Amino acid sequence: MTHNPPNQTQSNTPRAVVLLSGGLDSATCLAIAQSHGYACHCLSFDYHQRHANELAAADRVAAHHNAASHRVATIDLRAFGGSALTDDHIAVPKSDDPFQGDAGDIPVTYVPARNTIFLSYALALAEVLDAKAIYIGVNAVDYSGYPDCRPDFINAFQRMADLATRAGVEGHGPRIESPLSGMTKPDIIRLGLKLGVDYALTHSCYDPSNTGTPCARCDSCRIRKAAFAQLGMQDPALTG
Amino acid sequence: MTHNPPNQTQSNTPRAVVLLSGGLDSATCLAIAQSHGYACHCLSFDYHQRHANELAAADRVAAHHNAASHRVATIDLRAFGGSALTDDHIAVPKSDDPFQGDAGDIPVTYVPARNTIFLSYALALAEVLDAKAIYIGVNAVDYSGYPDCRPDFINAFQRMADLATRAGVEGHGPRIESPLSGMTKPDIIRLGLKLGVDYALTHSCYDPSNTGTPCARCDSCRIRKAAFAQLGMQDPALTG
Repeated sequence: MTHNPPNQTQSNTPRAVVLLSGGLDSATCLAIAQSHGYACHCLSFDYHQRHANELAAADRVAAHHNAASHRVATIDLRAFGGSALTDDHIAVPKSDDPFQGDAGDIPVTYVPARNTIFLSYALALAEVLDAKAIYIGVNAVDYSGYPDCRPDFINAFQRMADLATRAGVEGHGPRIESPLSGMTKPDIIRLGLKLGVDYALTHSCYDPSNTGTPCARCDSCRIRKAAFAQLGMQDPALTG
Repeated sequence: MTHNPPNQTQSNTPRAVVLLSGGLDSATCLAIAQSHGYACHCLSFDYHQRHANELAAADRVAAHHNAASHRVATIDLRAFGGSALTDDHIAVPKSDDPFQGDAGDIPVTYVPARNTIFLSYALALAEVLDAKAIYIGVNAVDYSGYPDCRPDFINAFQRMADLATRAGVEGHGPRIESPLSGMTKPDIIRLGLKLGVDYALTHSCYDPSNTGTPCARCDSCRIRKAAFAQLGMQDPALTG
């Protein structure tokens, strides 16, 4: 949660919704959105992540940048997988249902159509706030496995969003901004440092200790570590 | 909740996700999807509707049609409006935040970017189930006020969905089907009756009694009533 005093200078500033996971990319994205002149309304998701560290990091980052607000939306997709046998809202699966008897196959942290859902919520919040932009920190390193990180997807979401709401149809709906799209990790960090991001506050580790200390060994930690190393630095989340 | 016995004949049938509100349109849409040969996995949303009648009707309709499954996904958008002052996940809004001190302005039943969010969840479920189609019961009568009921929006969602998931990119992602799109209410009812829809099970009223009896006076009741009247019938939800 952010607990900064109200920032009176922001009251007439155009608004942006910033998708904020608490990781390196989204923290940089927030700083970029602010540098573009937006009052930034941050949006994080609680989808039963393994660790609360991500949401705590998102809170720290939003507070550090004195964001206009920080909301956490709960996305409960357990009905789609894990807990069909315990949730009484869910019909007992039929023979056609691939989850029958396999409730453990889909980890509860798995979010299918992930960026589509995240951007849809961002679009909803943008509608409520009359925001002019939505920032999402997808970047080049993510392209490999994830179709919904590519520019083609973002552009198609934009075209859909322009038809989805009254503001969009009237030509003043939000622009979907993915400023990290063509950037490497070292480029992202270099820009973020210039814009005042404190990477010690961010959290990217897939497998942190109980106290939230990153493991320094998972893919996510290693990509960060290597990127800081290329800049002749140590990752402050590992050293701090 | 559906409690029908497993339908063994459906196990190799292609799957569809059917958005099922429990109203007249979505019930017809389910019957159409089944007539197209799909094993239908119904998806409803609990977004703190005023009445549980809608979800109960969705259960009845799914059971009547022996749907392959019926899931209810909870969408909690209170973080976007109503309860910012009571939900401890939400930062206290700042001066820029239009909800500051206005927690009651947005009814909790309001779902911004509604069909975008509903279709995004359907896309996620389609990904999990490897479904070949998503059925949504938008129709001509709804066009007036809602940009996200128009064919242009549905087509744009399709193009976005084709880029959002691995199945989509590989060319076997779900088709978004809106079979009621060009139909009038009497046309919809005529087709539904032919396909075995029991409209007494459906619920469309905005303002039912505590026992779920429709009011017969709200817009939604009146549109139904007039459509049945054009077919020389009484609305069975009102008479039954």
